[in-house]
Amino acid sequence: MLNFDFYNPTQILFGKGRIADLNKVVPSDAKVLLMYGGGSIKKNGVFDEVIAALGEREVSEFSGIEPNPTYETLLVAIDLVKTKKIDFLLAVGGGSVIDSAKFVAAAALFEGGEPWAILEKRGSNISKALPFGAILTLPATGSEMNSGSVVTRRSINAKMAFNSRHCFPKFSILDPSKTFTLPVRQIGNGAVDAFIHVMEQYLTYPVNSPVQDRFAEGLLKTIIEEGPKALANPEDYDVRANLMWCATMALNGIISTGVPQDWATHMIGHELTALHGLDHAQTLAIILPSMLRIRKEGKLEKLLQYAERVWDLREGDENACIDAAITCTQDFFEEMGVKTHLSDYALDADCITPILAALESHRMVTLGEKRDVTLDISRQVLELSL
Amino acid sequence: MLNFDFYNPTQILFGKGRIADLNKVVPSDAKVLLMYGGGSIKKNGVFDEVIAALGEREVSEFSGIEPNPTYETLLVAIDLVKTKKIDFLLAVGGGSVIDSAKFVAAAALFEGGEPWAILEKRGSNISKALPFGAILTLPATGSEMNSGSVVTRRSINAKMAFNSRHCFPKFSILDPSKTFTLPVRQIGNGAVDAFIHVMEQYLTYPVNSPVQDRFAEGLLKTIIEEGPKALANPEDYDVRANLMWCATMALNGIISTGVPQDWATHMIGHELTALHGLDHAQTLAIILPSMLRIRKEGKLEKLLQYAERVWDLREGDENACIDAAITCTQDFFEEMGVKTHLSDYALDADCITPILAALESHRMVTLGEKRDVTLDISRQVLELSL
Repeated sequence: MLNFDFYNPTQILFGKGRIADLNKVVPSDAKVLLMYGGGSIKKNGVFDEVIAALGEREVSEFSGIEPNPTYETLLVAIDLVKTKKIDFLLAVGGGSVIDSAKFVAAAALFEGGEPWAILEKRGSNISKALPFGAILTLPATGSEMNSGSVVTRRSINAKMAFNSRHCFPKFSILDPSKTFTLPVRQIGNGAVDAFIHVMEQYLTYPVNSPVQDRFAEGLLKTIIEEGPKALANPEDYDVRANLMWCATMALNGIISTGVPQDWATHMIGHELTALHGLDHAQTLAIILPSMLRIRKEGKLEKLLQYAERVWDLREGDENACIDAAITCTQDFFEEMGVKTHLSDYALDADCITPILAALESHRMVTLGEKRDVTLDISRQVLELSL
Repeated sequence: MLNFDFYNPTQILFGKGRIADLNKVVPSDAKVLLMYGGGSIKKNGVFDEVIAALGEREVSEFSGIEPNPTYETLLVAIDLVKTKKIDFLLAVGGGSVIDSAKFVAAAALFEGGEPWAILEKRGSNISKALPFGAILTLPATGSEMNSGSVVTRRSINAKMAFNSRHCFPKFSILDPSKTFTLPVRQIGNGAVDAFIHVMEQYLTYPVNSPVQDRFAEGLLKTIIEEGPKALANPEDYDVRANLMWCATMALNGIISTGVPQDWATHMIGHELTALHGLDHAQTLAIILPSMLRIRKEGKLEKLLQYAERVWDLREGDENACIDAAITCTQDFFEEMGVKTHLSDYALDADCITPILAALESHRMVTLGEKRDVTLDISRQVLELSL
């Protein structure tokens, strides 16, 4: 096992009816900025529940946060926070809204010049942030229980990540019944996103970490079991609860303790979204299967363990088991309604060179757990993903 | 899945050489009370490393904390804290020392009269506590990453637990190499203690919680694999690291999210220790197998799952699988050097009635996940444990 630090102070309030507990976890004298996206929370009742739970507190609103939230949009929110002297942010939505709250929380108190510097320094220059909480309505990114965030700057087509120990939500409320009305596409994307978060932390090389491996495998198997049920029976509470908890546990730091991590799939995926607007999970579903095929040799032992323990593939030669496991993985993404080829999104070989150029401009020229995914390997991965 | 709250802000610094990082996590102006037990830390070099890492800070010492720390001993520590105006506690040792720090941290700032009231109210009357950190030298109780503590009052033979959200360690340093010199008995006890912590949260009744079940099973399987290796090869770093992380994960709240919990074995075990001085893990190893046998009907589904997934027992009829799994469990405790019968500790049937009387006096008349373990069932469990 590798040395590690673990720290995660976010309080989780999980279950039916928990939005009412907002009153206990938001300071009673808070001046709150309610941040949300396209307004679905006004249709499904979440907005009204939140307002009721906040009671007499002074509440301002900032809506219209887009998927892959943009720096340009968030600058407006930062101005609003300063103008209205907001002292508590409440993100209501999925990963995009929670990521936005993290950025606004840090940028509102940032003293290092233009807030874009936070992204350029990946958050290392954050020394404080406004307190914020989240109400999760879309299980996927795990942002509700970590300190990471991804922001896109539209003017330069850059999608960049940062994190800081000052950017953990104070609390997150997870009510699985609030996901019943999600569109099929978002449930499919969410399951695939959570699955690939686990893979980035699990599918590397062995370091004798049986607890972390078994936790990761437990999450993968649960997502494989519950994902299709979540599509088939949208109002099955337990299925939604299990999927929601998987997505949170997939990226709260527990399964990455003491193990190497990859994240090459994510880095290429971010460029695909920045350049072509694909959903985050779509980009991951395209890249991961090719990434595993191209890098089979370096990941051999863990691929074999994955085939055996997650997909019960033990018969035949090792190579065949691994190939079958990757095919099962790709089939699972398709079953969840997420297409796995660039061509499914009307992209052809012409898209590859600009993606590589973007990786290079963002200093992503060696990726992966061994930093051996060169731009040439990234090209091979993209070519195999056509 | 049941509704749940999860909150655990303890920072973990895990790995070789981490004691040097004390300098980063203890406030530089802290007046520190170093708390420890019998002095083994002076023989194995830990004490010197700690003193070196604390540098110029003002450090007082409180040593001689016993296994099953007593209220009587800790009152002396509380006086010392007040007299010397200590503002940071540093526990160096195993669960007993860390539990002691929690009690002293809360009692030093307690304004509700005699500190025993904290135990009587199980911690619900704690409103603040001194900050404290831990350096773990004995993996077992999980106290390094939770807010619970157990204190024994010798004058009335009472072993009582409390917890409070104010009593999480600010940090815990876990260096597996510091466990190489532990006596065999403490490694055996520690593995059994961690194993049974998992069982108390796992072996109840199904609530559709596949993530929590698989995490628990992953811990159980890892303890079964690594425990005997830890006895055979005391200086195998990875084995000690895996066992250490299992013990922490077994009781940091992650596996109990959203599931029922039992703890009847612990409650009876506490009385056995209070009345007869047995090691904590010894009491658990005696009680658990009988507890599972006596309550087989109420725990049938989870026992079957346990037999299948943890012990690979799938052949033959269900009852036989369950019986075999309980026997495997008991054999594992014996393999770890922890005897599993009251008679192994020179106790006979005469011990039973006083234990039941103690349970009654501590209002432990209905125990377990369904509160259906009456004193009569506790008697049956004890009789079967002779």
